[in-house]
Amino acid sequence: MISMDILKELCQKSNSKSILLVLDGLGGISRIPDGKTELETASTPNLDSLACNSITGMVDPISKGITPGSGPAHLSLFGYDPIKYRIGRGVLSALGIGFDFQPSDVAARINFATVAEDGRITDRRAGRLDTEKNGQLCSILNRIKIPGVEIFVRTVKEHRAIVVFRGNGLSGDLTDSDPQRAGVFPLPVRSHNDTREAKETARLANRFIEECRGILSKEEVANMVLLRGFAQFCPLPSMHEIYKLNAAAIANYPMYRGVARLVGMTVLDCGESIEDELDTLAREFQNYDFFYLHIKKTDSYGEDGDFDQKVHIIEKVDKHIPQIMNLDPDVIVVTGDHSTPAVLTAHSWHPNPVLLYSRWCRPDKVRAFSESECINGGLGHINALDIMPLILANALRLNKFGA
Amino acid sequence: MISMDILKELCQKSNSKSILLVLDGLGGISRIPDGKTELETASTPNLDSLACNSITGMVDPISKGITPGSGPAHLSLFGYDPIKYRIGRGVLSALGIGFDFQPSDVAARINFATVAEDGRITDRRAGRLDTEKNGQLCSILNRIKIPGVEIFVRTVKEHRAIVVFRGNGLSGDLTDSDPQRAGVFPLPVRSHNDTREAKETARLANRFIEECRGILSKEEVANMVLLRGFAQFCPLPSMHEIYKLNAAAIANYPMYRGVARLVGMTVLDCGESIEDELDTLAREFQNYDFFYLHIKKTDSYGEDGDFDQKVHIIEKVDKHIPQIMNLDPDVIVVTGDHSTPAVLTAHSWHPNPVLLYSRWCRPDKVRAFSESECINGGLGHINALDIMPLILANALRLNKFGA
Repeated sequence: MISMDILKELCQKSNSKSILLVLDGLGGISRIPDGKTELETASTPNLDSLACNSITGMVDPISKGITPGSGPAHLSLFGYDPIKYRIGRGVLSALGIGFDFQPSDVAARINFATVAEDGRITDRRAGRLDTEKNGQLCSILNRIKIPGVEIFVRTVKEHRAIVVFRGNGLSGDLTDSDPQRAGVFPLPVRSHNDTREAKETARLANRFIEECRGILSKEEVANMVLLRGFAQFCPLPSMHEIYKLNAAAIANYPMYRGVARLVGMTVLDCGESIEDELDTLAREFQNYDFFYLHIKKTDSYGEDGDFDQKVHIIEKVDKHIPQIMNLDPDVIVVTGDHSTPAVLTAHSWHPNPVLLYSRWCRPDKVRAFSESECINGGLGHINALDIMPLILANALRLNKFGA
Repeated sequence: MISMDILKELCQKSNSKSILLVLDGLGGISRIPDGKTELETASTPNLDSLACNSITGMVDPISKGITPGSGPAHLSLFGYDPIKYRIGRGVLSALGIGFDFQPSDVAARINFATVAEDGRITDRRAGRLDTEKNGQLCSILNRIKIPGVEIFVRTVKEHRAIVVFRGNGLSGDLTDSDPQRAGVFPLPVRSHNDTREAKETARLANRFIEECRGILSKEEVANMVLLRGFAQFCPLPSMHEIYKLNAAAIANYPMYRGVARLVGMTVLDCGESIEDELDTLAREFQNYDFFYLHIKKTDSYGEDGDFDQKVHIIEKVDKHIPQIMNLDPDVIVVTGDHSTPAVLTAHSWHPNPVLLYSRWCRPDKVRAFSESECINGGLGHINALDIMPLILANALRLNKFGA
């Protein structure tokens, strides 16, 4: 893969418009030996027809055999090496609700939880707390003051919230207080390393938890907080800075909006449905030159083990392909961030099929958009980090390397 | 390729069992243009049938165009970067006979040789000395004392033995005394670099050779030693430490037993034949969760230039595939460590075909296990270092990378 530094040297502006359509968890495996994956089961005449005019291939999100979380998988698609840029869940969650980070802030995810009188956890999600009640409690916890640090508590949804600590000499290298099961006590937050920063931040986090416990003690259900996914925010170079792209994200789930914001995309308001997302794309198409368009439900149904519903979502997306192509993008890439085979009910390591269409793509002989067909595609087997350079090249946005 | 550090973070225990079946020097080339390789000539109904249910591909042992020795080729298959971990032949040979190294020991291979009265070599192998005689001579040479260093001389087989120097400030960066041909004088051992350590170890080695020459002067045949493959021992992290695998090796040649020991495998007692090896596999199958099963003779016949016998060995292995599959391993990989085309009578740079079978492998359309078919396999063209992550993923032993 080419380094970001070199890519930055080569990028130039142009009027071309590119779309990166990500079907989350697209890749699958078959239910029976010799059977078909979700994508192969789905009727996808429009994607297949697009594949005929495209160059195709297979994409490894990270490396052979490695199953990625959504954060690293997306960073990789956006051209940011996920091994170099390791973004913790706390930061991703906070970015997802649009939290305005400053460098070296430390974030963690909060679960409102229920503990019994003896302090043992009885429900790690406080009965999937009402979102409004969550908002009220966050407003109160947001007033907690601890000398030497600023604290921000923000509501997310149901039992989920986030906390951000801002101050000098903080570290995100901390263990969770959430033991990940009921029937036991919350754990003290501990530092993963011996630095003064990590020890001091662990002390702060534990003090914060104590303050929360005091405030919440009069609550019947949400009478405790559990913290996990501590991470320090570290700003990334923006897609504008690296690629000279005016990039927009159309994604309706907080975490994906968060990753997009992290790489400097404008995160557009869009509704909940695929139709809403496509309306947003059409409405904003003249205003940006790169669109990240995210479809979440392929992954959700994969994680639920619902093969048929995943097939259905793929078919639904397929029906909208002509609508997208009518916008006449110069480049469109369709792929997944990782595989989520319904039979595994989880993310997996399997590569995703990819198609890239542009006037200049050099179409291959692949005639269908599927795992088994794209194996023989003209792109070969690539890493997700190769996708942005290929988009930029096909968008005629990359200068020659060397004379 | 993913780094070993990250892989170590991601590995978890499980009850799954994996087999890595290595046909040494498997890959070949045809005798006539447009003809068939050894593997393509062999009748392999069982491997072909397994390929139908597997994902396949091509594997480069080190890098395009690079012909590996057996040591680096195996390290790579075991997931250890052979560029980073350079193990000299002397160390490998000593490991092969179970020598118990201490860190920074320096080892070299010994050939018992015959020299004429003027000192010129007449036979580099002392008439392929009797193994028992070899043992007697090694016992005598083992008594050589040189101040400041401990010396261990151990018999291997026929004309082959090893010597290990133990002490402070030694170096393995030395040239051979073996000129690799008869009719000339043995060479003095020289240091490859200007360090005090290398110069001092060269001096020790030359003094050792002088002592040997004195002791052996009354011998008619084995009246000299030739040293080659100097190398310093450097312990590797074990497969248990990195992969959390309880790994066993079934290999009947010393060097492969040595490499397996180097990465912390338990080296099982097994007989000389393929049948013996498979009996060992069956007997020990419940006791380990990873098996490295090594077939040597594909390589031996390749090096002999015996195309037909190499074909025969492949067919023999094929007949045993059902026996292996009856053990019901969760993952099986079949490949070579490098190619040894009979027409080249030597190791070569050609990639090897690979098949990986597991419940989760996402089978491709390849219907035969061969070089020309596996080119179109779903794994694509991978590096041998990718094999362990793929085995671990398919064995459901890898956690997700990032959130």
